[in-house]
Amino acid sequence: MTKEHDLINRYFAPLCSPSEAAPAFGLLDDTAILPPTKDHQLLVTTDALVAGVHFFADDPAHSIAHKALAVNVSDIVAKGGHPDSYVLTIALPKNIEPNWLQEFASGLGDAQSEYGCQLIGGDTVATSGPLMISITLLGKVTTGKMVRRKGARPGDVVFVSGTIGDAALGLLLRTNGELLAKTTLTSRQVEHLRERYLQPQPRVELAANVATYASAALDVSDGLVGDFSKLCAASHVGGTIEAARVPLSDAAISALAQEPDLLETILTGGDDYEVLAVVPAALAEKFEQEAVNVMRIGLIGERQDSIKVLDADGQPLELAQSAYDHFGDIER
Amino acid sequence: MTKEHDLINRYFAPLCSPSEAAPAFGLLDDTAILPPTKDHQLLVTTDALVAGVHFFADDPAHSIAHKALAVNVSDIVAKGGHPDSYVLTIALPKNIEPNWLQEFASGLGDAQSEYGCQLIGGDTVATSGPLMISITLLGKVTTGKMVRRKGARPGDVVFVSGTIGDAALGLLLRTNGELLAKTTLTSRQVEHLRERYLQPQPRVELAANVATYASAALDVSDGLVGDFSKLCAASHVGGTIEAARVPLSDAAISALAQEPDLLETILTGGDDYEVLAVVPAALAEKFEQEAVNVMRIGLIGERQDSIKVLDADGQPLELAQSAYDHFGDIER
Repeated sequence: MTKEHDLINRYFAPLCSPSEAAPAFGLLDDTAILPPTKDHQLLVTTDALVAGVHFFADDPAHSIAHKALAVNVSDIVAKGGHPDSYVLTIALPKNIEPNWLQEFASGLGDAQSEYGCQLIGGDTVATSGPLMISITLLGKVTTGKMVRRKGARPGDVVFVSGTIGDAALGLLLRTNGELLAKTTLTSRQVEHLRERYLQPQPRVELAANVATYASAALDVSDGLVGDFSKLCAASHVGGTIEAARVPLSDAAISALAQEPDLLETILTGGDDYEVLAVVPAALAEKFEQEAVNVMRIGLIGERQDSIKVLDADGQPLELAQSAYDHFGDIER
Repeated sequence: MTKEHDLINRYFAPLCSPSEAAPAFGLLDDTAILPPTKDHQLLVTTDALVAGVHFFADDPAHSIAHKALAVNVSDIVAKGGHPDSYVLTIALPKNIEPNWLQEFASGLGDAQSEYGCQLIGGDTVATSGPLMISITLLGKVTTGKMVRRKGARPGDVVFVSGTIGDAALGLLLRTNGELLAKTTLTSRQVEHLRERYLQPQPRVELAANVATYASAALDVSDGLVGDFSKLCAASHVGGTIEAARVPLSDAAISALAQEPDLLETILTGGDDYEVLAVVPAALAEKFEQEAVNVMRIGLIGERQDSIKVLDADGQPLELAQSAYDHFGDIER
């Protein structure tokens, strides 16, 4: 048999469970099968990561695998769904080591256990370029409960989960260490920021709350302000975010105290993989009680073209860049 | 908005129909949704193409797009299913031209019309490496009717669709023109072989016949002999192919008449995207009548480790390489 066949058998077939049964048939059939759905619908999302663009080629293979699945899980969760199964395409440079593949497969295995989904197919190809991973994730959502970007109404309350800006600061630590060297981050804080860039933690625990309460939602992947703008545009509304209410980690607070200009990086930097959920005012209190670790950060308004971020004095902040565009390299 | 956003809006959103409705919501939601399934199951397959490995970087963009979808359609058809919807990941080198993208999108549009499926999502990323396209295709199959590699029984008849070896000869024309220059192919024959490499034609018209009659099947993508071996291995049987019965185009017959050594290229070269279907003997005649353009080429036998290809005198052929492994470049 071929080298590709060996590679699949050794590293990826063990991620399908139980072996040789549906849906994946031990990856022997080029095609997986899903059971009929009755009380739910299937969600489909796909996200790709390229070395040198979305991660550093020398990041640990375990983290790269985790991130490749996590960024897809994040999309499903923000739509009110639960991850179910995925297919993986991986383009491998010629010099890839068996150890790297072993660690990558182990990272995928850990991530799929964490998020409750399984590998059901894939394709492994060789490339003369950088490593690339593309995952298509299928999720399940109760019929009729998918939450779209569209649906926010004036008066709805804007929530965000977790903390914002950590991953962008973690990336900054990698690309422009000098800037952060001026701050007095502890080594634990530095580790926190680096980890948030390396290993995003999509909020699977919020999926049901989002499905139940949100009028609109998306995951924060391209920067809080940019993604909020996208949600407002799709909903044909405007809105306001109060910067002082945006939840920050103690590491981000320390960095910001020393370097106030980092506020823009925090609000627009991306890679957060938190949930931005808009909830009707009448349900906001219930959502706040039931959803773990979410914070009110703003309000939806009438005017379609008005997206404002207010500082602590209620004055609009001027932000140069509202969303990160991955059509630039991280390794400049 | 970002460059990626513009690119999606301009080239890919028009491939979702109707715009802004389910399943794809005009590509605005990062996530598509599928309706509940009742009388069918969903098939999932994924195949990626890399420039310089699976196609030539200077192939027409229209052909590249067609091939990227066609190779996935081929997998679904060979399992007895019909293509339904797909997500596209495309990694673009920096120097890609708008014209190229326009032609690529047009090729995808033509291919999806031909195969009866639609774009429902995707991801567009930048790469410093070669162009890469990864498609995950979802197909529909009548519940319980998916045809696996496993399932062939001794005495079953082996069928193949279309003609075999054209694409491999078409590739040879590109990489080793001298070899074929010795043959007296007409320009129409040369064009036929090139076209079969550039634009595979998966046999969607055979899906229902495969679902109804086949005990096992797969698509011929890595070479007839190698893929037949895989089917036999999965089914725990052996089998025999009669080389003289393998259907050839008149171009392949001409090439073979001048260069008998090309038989190995034809039988093992790959990229055929034909259907290899194994049918119980009692149903073989009906299958032959109902299925368009299929040919009996062999029989399934008892012995698991015995895969034979017989020449016109009934003697086993010795083949050096049984399957093409894409872990080599085409542009050596």
